[in-house]
Amino acid sequence: MKQTNFGNVVALAGGVGGAKLAYGLYQLVPPEKLTVIVNTGDDFEHLGLHISPDLDTIMYTLAGIANPGTGWGVKDESWNMMAALARYGQPTWFQLGDRDLATHLLRTKWLRENRPYNWVTRELSQRLGVRCLILPMTESLVRTMIMTEQGEMAFQEYFVQKQCQPVVKSIRFAGAEQAQPSREVASALRNADVIIFCPSNPLLSLDPILALPNMRRILAASRVPKVGVSPIVGGAALKGPAAKLMNELGLEVSPIGVARHLSDVLTGFVLDQVDQAHQEAVSALGLQTLVTGTIMLTDEDRVRLAREVLQFAGM
Amino acid sequence: MKQTNFGNVVALAGGVGGAKLAYGLYQLVPPEKLTVIVNTGDDFEHLGLHISPDLDTIMYTLAGIANPGTGWGVKDESWNMMAALARYGQPTWFQLGDRDLATHLLRTKWLRENRPYNWVTRELSQRLGVRCLILPMTESLVRTMIMTEQGEMAFQEYFVQKQCQPVVKSIRFAGAEQAQPSREVASALRNADVIIFCPSNPLLSLDPILALPNMRRILAASRVPKVGVSPIVGGAALKGPAAKLMNELGLEVSPIGVARHLSDVLTGFVLDQVDQAHQEAVSALGLQTLVTGTIMLTDEDRVRLAREVLQFAGM
Repeated sequence: MKQTNFGNVVALAGGVGGAKLAYGLYQLVPPEKLTVIVNTGDDFEHLGLHISPDLDTIMYTLAGIANPGTGWGVKDESWNMMAALARYGQPTWFQLGDRDLATHLLRTKWLRENRPYNWVTRELSQRLGVRCLILPMTESLVRTMIMTEQGEMAFQEYFVQKQCQPVVKSIRFAGAEQAQPSREVASALRNADVIIFCPSNPLLSLDPILALPNMRRILAASRVPKVGVSPIVGGAALKGPAAKLMNELGLEVSPIGVARHLSDVLTGFVLDQVDQAHQEAVSALGLQTLVTGTIMLTDEDRVRLAREVLQFAGM
Repeated sequence: MKQTNFGNVVALAGGVGGAKLAYGLYQLVPPEKLTVIVNTGDDFEHLGLHISPDLDTIMYTLAGIANPGTGWGVKDESWNMMAALARYGQPTWFQLGDRDLATHLLRTKWLRENRPYNWVTRELSQRLGVRCLILPMTESLVRTMIMTEQGEMAFQEYFVQKQCQPVVKSIRFAGAEQAQPSREVASALRNADVIIFCPSNPLLSLDPILALPNMRRILAASRVPKVGVSPIVGGAALKGPAAKLMNELGLEVSPIGVARHLSDVLTGFVLDQVDQAHQEAVSALGLQTLVTGTIMLTDEDRVRLAREVLQFAGM
């Protein structure tokens, strides 16, 4: 890895798994060379607040203030607003911590003032001390909608309120056709020397990004290494509903299923050592492969995997 | 006092002093017979939230959850949202407690959904267990504006941010001319058997109510006892800037000054025993007078004063 004269690294990420690898990259890549493009299909309005779960998870993780136990929210959190809300008889299925609320209030205020989403995201993350660029995937509203056997529901209803219990029949990204990757997103991708698809849920976190018009075209036109990292290890998702969802939607619950799903926008793929048996099948998709330990339990794991992924991508 | 067959009691109130007497009345008057009409001229928008300081002080006080130390907010409060907001470099001159935030979030959400302010206020207070009716003075936007030697400023800027330091030249209630007392307010006043002007700041808490078109006419048309209670005791305000403000605006800082200011809408006036010397001058305004202890340090004080005021008003 050439520590000097580092190229531009762009990471595409969703929530927890993506944040872990982004954290590792952030420790290695000079911050002015790192851009993290984040899924906003999970955004929703709650209690009049604009909530952006994936942006917050990435931002809090890079700022070093993420709640290590939950995968969302900030550490040392308190829940007194929620307690008061419960006293008002309001639904409490979506937990909003007291410290976390400052982010939602400020983001909502700024968006209501018609500030660009990019500007809002940069202000919030910079003020928390994050020095690399975090970009929402688009300035437009895109909403991940889950069609289940109980009917269609918004992502948070499926994910948080129903805890991913309903069987999923299909997923759509409402508004994606009218949306565009922002100028900043397109520019970051065009100037990238490496593009890394973090180990986020391919169907819920990466697909919304890829559903934006021109996004696949921009990625296909890029001649740089484009490396995915499997969120599926040993036939199961490391976190969240990816395995259940892939199964319900007829994808093979293995690194092959993920690699196949993303193969048209990848040049390389990283799979876990427990899945070494799948390496050949992934290679057969036309992808370079790296087999290594992909489970990130500690900060050291995150940095080590990030280093290996960067090296694999030629950095 | 006829505990059976109680008449309808209407109290007009602003913040802390008003809340104390309202609390006393609430302990004595059957809740279905008590209506508290509250100043909303202090309402303002902050962080995208609709904040109504006087409604909250009345509501929290009657619900028994008011912060006994501050005169605003709820007891057992935490301040973690504010700490996070400060980390974002945002101004923190207006303190929003974590528990208190639930009220602002819910009120703002409901008002944005175009629910009537009366409905919102009733929902919030009922869910906190308040059984009497609390009414915002109007459904319309009225904003108390303070003209000072440093220029005109919104009430909260003067009151909280500048801590009442600027010398006041005049006060206006922006929007009052276009506002109306709500139907519920007008109806409560028309059906009142007693109207009590709580010991709130006459210039900042009662004047906004009286500035509503028709309000003075409705009150003048009422033939029932209308009793004011002096917030000025011994030449000073018990709380807040009333004395400083009365002085700056050329009113006599005494029960006489208050009684004179309100004399056209009162039939009786309660002054503190330390101001007994002023009783004759207040009587000379054509008002019945009661001299008693008006300082409410304990809940017992509040109930005792409320009882005496009701008896004085013929209840």
